[in-house]
Amino acid sequence: MEKFLGIDIGGTNVKFGLVESSGNLIYKKKYPTAEVGEDDKFIKNFKKILTKQLEKNPSIKKVGIGVPGTLSKDRLWTLELPNIPGLEKKRFLGELKDHFSNITFHVENDANAAALGEYYFAENKVPDNFIFITLGTGVGGAAVIDGQIFKGGDGNGMEIGHIVSSNGKTIEENIGKKGILGMALTTLEGYEGKSVLSEMGVLNPKKVVKAAHGQDVLALEIFADVGKYLGESIVSAIRLLDVKTVLIGGGVSDTFEYVRHSMYDSINHYLTPYYTDKLDIRLATLGNEAGIIGAASLCFIDD
Amino acid sequence: MEKFLGIDIGGTNVKFGLVESSGNLIYKKKYPTAEVGEDDKFIKNFKKILTKQLEKNPSIKKVGIGVPGTLSKDRLWTLELPNIPGLEKKRFLGELKDHFSNITFHVENDANAAALGEYYFAENKVPDNFIFITLGTGVGGAAVIDGQIFKGGDGNGMEIGHIVSSNGKTIEENIGKKGILGMALTTLEGYEGKSVLSEMGVLNPKKVVKAAHGQDVLALEIFADVGKYLGESIVSAIRLLDVKTVLIGGGVSDTFEYVRHSMYDSINHYLTPYYTDKLDIRLATLGNEAGIIGAASLCFIDD
Repeated sequence: MEKFLGIDIGGTNVKFGLVESSGNLIYKKKYPTAEVGEDDKFIKNFKKILTKQLEKNPSIKKVGIGVPGTLSKDRLWTLELPNIPGLEKKRFLGELKDHFSNITFHVENDANAAALGEYYFAENKVPDNFIFITLGTGVGGAAVIDGQIFKGGDGNGMEIGHIVSSNGKTIEENIGKKGILGMALTTLEGYEGKSVLSEMGVLNPKKVVKAAHGQDVLALEIFADVGKYLGESIVSAIRLLDVKTVLIGGGVSDTFEYVRHSMYDSINHYLTPYYTDKLDIRLATLGNEAGIIGAASLCFIDD
Repeated sequence: MEKFLGIDIGGTNVKFGLVESSGNLIYKKKYPTAEVGEDDKFIKNFKKILTKQLEKNPSIKKVGIGVPGTLSKDRLWTLELPNIPGLEKKRFLGELKDHFSNITFHVENDANAAALGEYYFAENKVPDNFIFITLGTGVGGAAVIDGQIFKGGDGNGMEIGHIVSSNGKTIEENIGKKGILGMALTTLEGYEGKSVLSEMGVLNPKKVVKAAHGQDVLALEIFADVGKYLGESIVSAIRLLDVKTVLIGGGVSDTFEYVRHSMYDSINHYLTPYYTDKLDIRLATLGNEAGIIGAASLCFIDD
């Protein structure tokens, strides 16, 4: 079976993984991003590590790389990578192609890579058209249209976290981790009922999740609001992209039950049966290794 | 010069036009939609009229048709056309292809056709990536990505009038004709200042425009709100499609000055320099004949 190298470059770690064409991850190794280096050293050190990995696995002919930020439309250049300044505005793919001339490289935004990973390797077959939303510190997005990553006009579409929601904030300001914490603090302030949130000391998003797990009414209200805004983001994205399948990834699987009901309320409020009749909203399935496997799935892109 | 037949099927009229490959409209004829017929008669009568037009212009080999509604992704079928029930859910393009076997046909949503018309024939060159927003009774949208109509996943993307805005209404509910009238009535109710709107009898959208032309403060406030929501729709669409050019069409050219300022306030509030540095928002230029010329421009699509 053909094997690919998938590389997930994140703000904390750079993860390398050997992935079979079935999507099976057979080996992985991670390097702290800070150690890989800053400024011009990043690409230099990255090339060294990559050389080592390729020497260990001489059968590898294709490498896919996911990066947390924006790229030029032709993917030769990185643009903005707020969490990895040393890799910003660099001719990253260009240099890799020059240096490793017998290897085919693909570089993509990490949400796009994760979406493509789901497309090829999700537990249940995903259709050719879908939206992917990833929830976490930020709220990221991607879309696959006709089986291909949707890049938009200039290469960096699907910034779904930054669209407008019904309270005038962006989706991310509402339902990113900071947004959830902010909602908890604001709601708690005027709250007259009893909530475990007022007894947990300095709040953080994890504590809000924990309170919801304990069926705390206020925490559940907060996640109901999260569902409302998540639903709105799905409405606007579906209206513009005309897809009927939505995958939701990121660290949401254990709170999805708390947001589901109000999410569908939003959706049913705004969308017509043309959309809702076939609507399928599901959790992404690749989990922890979504980054590596998604990066490897870029190797399926035709050149 | 090659000539094309452009046909703009609207709720009121079906307009036929002979368009040169330069975009020059050299002849046009219109038939009331109600006379073309209802139910199964629509396609039958349409074919008769078309046969006559093609006999008059035997050099025509390509026909482009714009319809006000949704279509199957392969364009063979019409789906929902609220203003022309007689043409709903019909194998329209399919039947035309069968009947006129020596003619190449293209059928598109009318906003998509108008956007493509601007792409080929606007006074000032339009780039390969842009969003088109048309304001009127409804608020329609289209996008051209890499020089091609963006269809989305299932063929009917860019329903920009139905995305969510910051007051929880959809964009169209805010800035469609009904929305503007509704805003006028609501605002007038609690208004303590002096406004000509209170002296105009039963209000309608045209009277609100007239009041704004007369610098009526309340009417101008209403258009400032329109600009705010128009700006929000541009923000969300740009975040998802990553384009930097926006064309605005429909009956807006004479009120655009009243919405411009607050539109840019919205945009600058939400968008970063990555978008705003190159942002170019302009009025569409094809005017009254946009429908026919847009339909004819469909003949430029490769088969």
